[in-house]
Amino acid sequence: MRLSRYFLPVMKDTPADAQIVSHRYMLRAGMIRQQAAGIYSWLPLGFKVLKRIEEIVHEEQQRAGHIPLLMPTLQPADLWQESGRYDDYGEEMLRISDRHGRDMLYGPTNEEMITDIFRGYVSSYKDLPLTLYHIQWKFRDERRPRFGVMRGREFYMKDGYNFDLTKEDALHAYNRHLVSYLRTYERLGLQAIPMRADGGPIGGDYTHEFLVLAETGESEVFYDSEVTDLSFGDREIDYDDKVQCQGVLEEFTSRYARTDETHDEAEFAKVPEERRKTARGIEVGQIFYFGTKYSESMGAKVQGPDGQVVPVHMGSHGIGVSRLLGAIIEASHDDKGIIWPEGVTPFHCGIVNLRQGDEAADAACESLYAALEGAGLEPLYDDRDERAGGKFATQDLIGLPWRITVGPRGLKNGVVELTSRRTGESEELTPEAAVAKVIAIYENIA
Amino acid sequence: MRLSRYFLPVMKDTPADAQIVSHRYMLRAGMIRQQAAGIYSWLPLGFKVLKRIEEIVHEEQQRAGHIPLLMPTLQPADLWQESGRYDDYGEEMLRISDRHGRDMLYGPTNEEMITDIFRGYVSSYKDLPLTLYHIQWKFRDERRPRFGVMRGREFYMKDGYNFDLTKEDALHAYNRHLVSYLRTYERLGLQAIPMRADGGPIGGDYTHEFLVLAETGESEVFYDSEVTDLSFGDREIDYDDKVQCQGVLEEFTSRYARTDETHDEAEFAKVPEERRKTARGIEVGQIFYFGTKYSESMGAKVQGPDGQVVPVHMGSHGIGVSRLLGAIIEASHDDKGIIWPEGVTPFHCGIVNLRQGDEAADAACESLYAALEGAGLEPLYDDRDERAGGKFATQDLIGLPWRITVGPRGLKNGVVELTSRRTGESEELTPEAAVAKVIAIYENIA
Repeated sequence: MRLSRYFLPVMKDTPADAQIVSHRYMLRAGMIRQQAAGIYSWLPLGFKVLKRIEEIVHEEQQRAGHIPLLMPTLQPADLWQESGRYDDYGEEMLRISDRHGRDMLYGPTNEEMITDIFRGYVSSYKDLPLTLYHIQWKFRDERRPRFGVMRGREFYMKDGYNFDLTKEDALHAYNRHLVSYLRTYERLGLQAIPMRADGGPIGGDYTHEFLVLAETGESEVFYDSEVTDLSFGDREIDYDDKVQCQGVLEEFTSRYARTDETHDEAEFAKVPEERRKTARGIEVGQIFYFGTKYSESMGAKVQGPDGQVVPVHMGSHGIGVSRLLGAIIEASHDDKGIIWPEGVTPFHCGIVNLRQGDEAADAACESLYAALEGAGLEPLYDDRDERAGGKFATQDLIGLPWRITVGPRGLKNGVVELTSRRTGESEELTPEAAVAKVIAIYENIA
Repeated sequence: MRLSRYFLPVMKDTPADAQIVSHRYMLRAGMIRQQAAGIYSWLPLGFKVLKRIEEIVHEEQQRAGHIPLLMPTLQPADLWQESGRYDDYGEEMLRISDRHGRDMLYGPTNEEMITDIFRGYVSSYKDLPLTLYHIQWKFRDERRPRFGVMRGREFYMKDGYNFDLTKEDALHAYNRHLVSYLRTYERLGLQAIPMRADGGPIGGDYTHEFLVLAETGESEVFYDSEVTDLSFGDREIDYDDKVQCQGVLEEFTSRYARTDETHDEAEFAKVPEERRKTARGIEVGQIFYFGTKYSESMGAKVQGPDGQVVPVHMGSHGIGVSRLLGAIIEASHDDKGIIWPEGVTPFHCGIVNLRQGDEAADAACESLYAALEGAGLEPLYDDRDERAGGKFATQDLIGLPWRITVGPRGLKNGVVELTSRRTGESEELTPEAAVAKVIAIYENIA
């Protein structure tokens, strides 16, 4: 993309009402625009990152054998009356009446609807195990929306639901989700720590939240510092292998790691003192096993191999897709702007032309642009007739991990400059070598 | 995907309340499930086609230089009060009140919000031309939703908006949209004829609807039969070339083609009698140029090169993404089921194992499956322990364009059968030759 043809409304001034850094940078980098309290437009740059995160979530869910579908944003109230949650949910549920006066709601989550889909088609254990998920807009009418996309009202979430014949199978589905979430967060450039959580209104005995450590996190967290040494890495996983998935769960959850909701001082005290850590964390996902809570109340039953008709064991598993943009920025920025991890960056590499209109500089930029595009990468070429300082400030603010700077002086020596946004380090390379290095970087993370 | 692990709830019986063939087949093929009047879940097979159409629409819009973003589903009422449409829109607008009693609505279209975004950031002609678009869920509270996804209440639409300094530039944007829409529909396997339309409540002097001819179309259409001979084909287009784009517009719109809303008997009579045709059509898109209607009422102005501040010229341009599934099926089916065009098929090729459990048949199917996946295609392997008749009926109903049938008898002679869903013709080929042929077919349409 050429910046002269793009829509990237960056702002110099810090918006007064944005309290946390991710909200400030998303506004300043022209990623989002508030349309009403807690309701945002995703401007082109923000939309690109949102789509990239969505793609990674889809890929990792499908790798785990989970099947995508899409439920609508609006739901009829009667499904929620059946489960008993229509009255319980309170003011966070946005209730709507249509032109015929029928009670509807904007879905805050989808346990009822997915259970309705399941019971509409499945009646035999032979169709199990089954995990269905979708990524769809949700609405929770927060009393006090704030922190930009971190606590919006209209938000984008992946929510998945497993249906299994037995508790044992359902706990394997739980483990599969834990494993797939660890992979997902690492691809997003995040360390998200599974912490024992509280079932809350959805209920559930087995539940973990995934937290990203950040000063601005809404939760206080307590953990054994050994958990931050763990990394999923590029290990091979067979998602059908119950023992292997259980092993990952144990590896990542056996050490103490809890939020304030479940914190237990006595347990924490057993952790050696030098490893006892307190910090703040941002919740970016949660997995639940809740047994037969919905399948009993809504009649989602199957015939087992013994001929008995039994309610299925279920769980629900969520990743806050839109919230993740905020979490990634909270975890990865400096005082000049955002620093995107390579896995989610909206453009792979910036190209800054220091002297737009200079024949050699223009030609070199065009040739870099074509070479990067030819390799399947998306460069963002700042081809505007602006001063170098302004171009650098924009690049730093929007946070592309790599930048190639092209100027007449360097070109006389046959070189351009390749700069890492994270380290700030630059090296002079021939244009061909710079392109080759950028291509190699992205091949390694694909 | 292996069918034994997928969620494809096909139905034998024809649903009683589905009046048109696309609705019946989408229900029977397990593509959609009605959750409330005019509100559907997209089951896995339907979701795959929806995503494929969305991808093609994105690709063609971006090829034309249009920039994607994403506006929220809910909008504050005050934007619509500014434009004057809040009271005009009537009962089709779903009006919502949040917990603080603020008036909101579920967006039926986005002229107001996109104009608000534009005026929030752009103030100079130097940032023009600009076309922004999104693909997002919309809601129109139809009094009588029907025909499945063809006239739903919650529907998925691509809507794009151009901002230009002059009427001339805006008409070029209009032409760009016309060209990109012709390309889009052809990639979807559809012939969509641009017909002169009526501005309706959005207004506009220049507007064309795109109609797909089908018996079940909601509009009566009148046209010169020469329009159905036109095809966009694989011609190269430079979207910046005003003359070229205008040429395409003239080629595709100079002959008589109108819906009943704009039909003019006297004009139609000038068409030679043997070329005068009457039929029914499904509207799958519309383009509008409406000048300064919204930019004046909402203050979307820029400073021109002469220093004058003037309202921008705008247009809006829509493609009914979810409705397209219905339109494609109406245009492409037989009495056994759907026939997907290669460009949108949910899976590229079916594999039917005639004797599940037979060692040679199982091994041959696995090897075909791996070869197709290895080539980047998505096969659907019917690995269930079912009778051949049931497997063929499912394949015909869900409409994959190609099927490879594998049985012990053929394998003794070293062959499998490759069958075209459209023609019903089969040929015996070695497994390697069958794979090569399927790969070649999709290479040609990519």
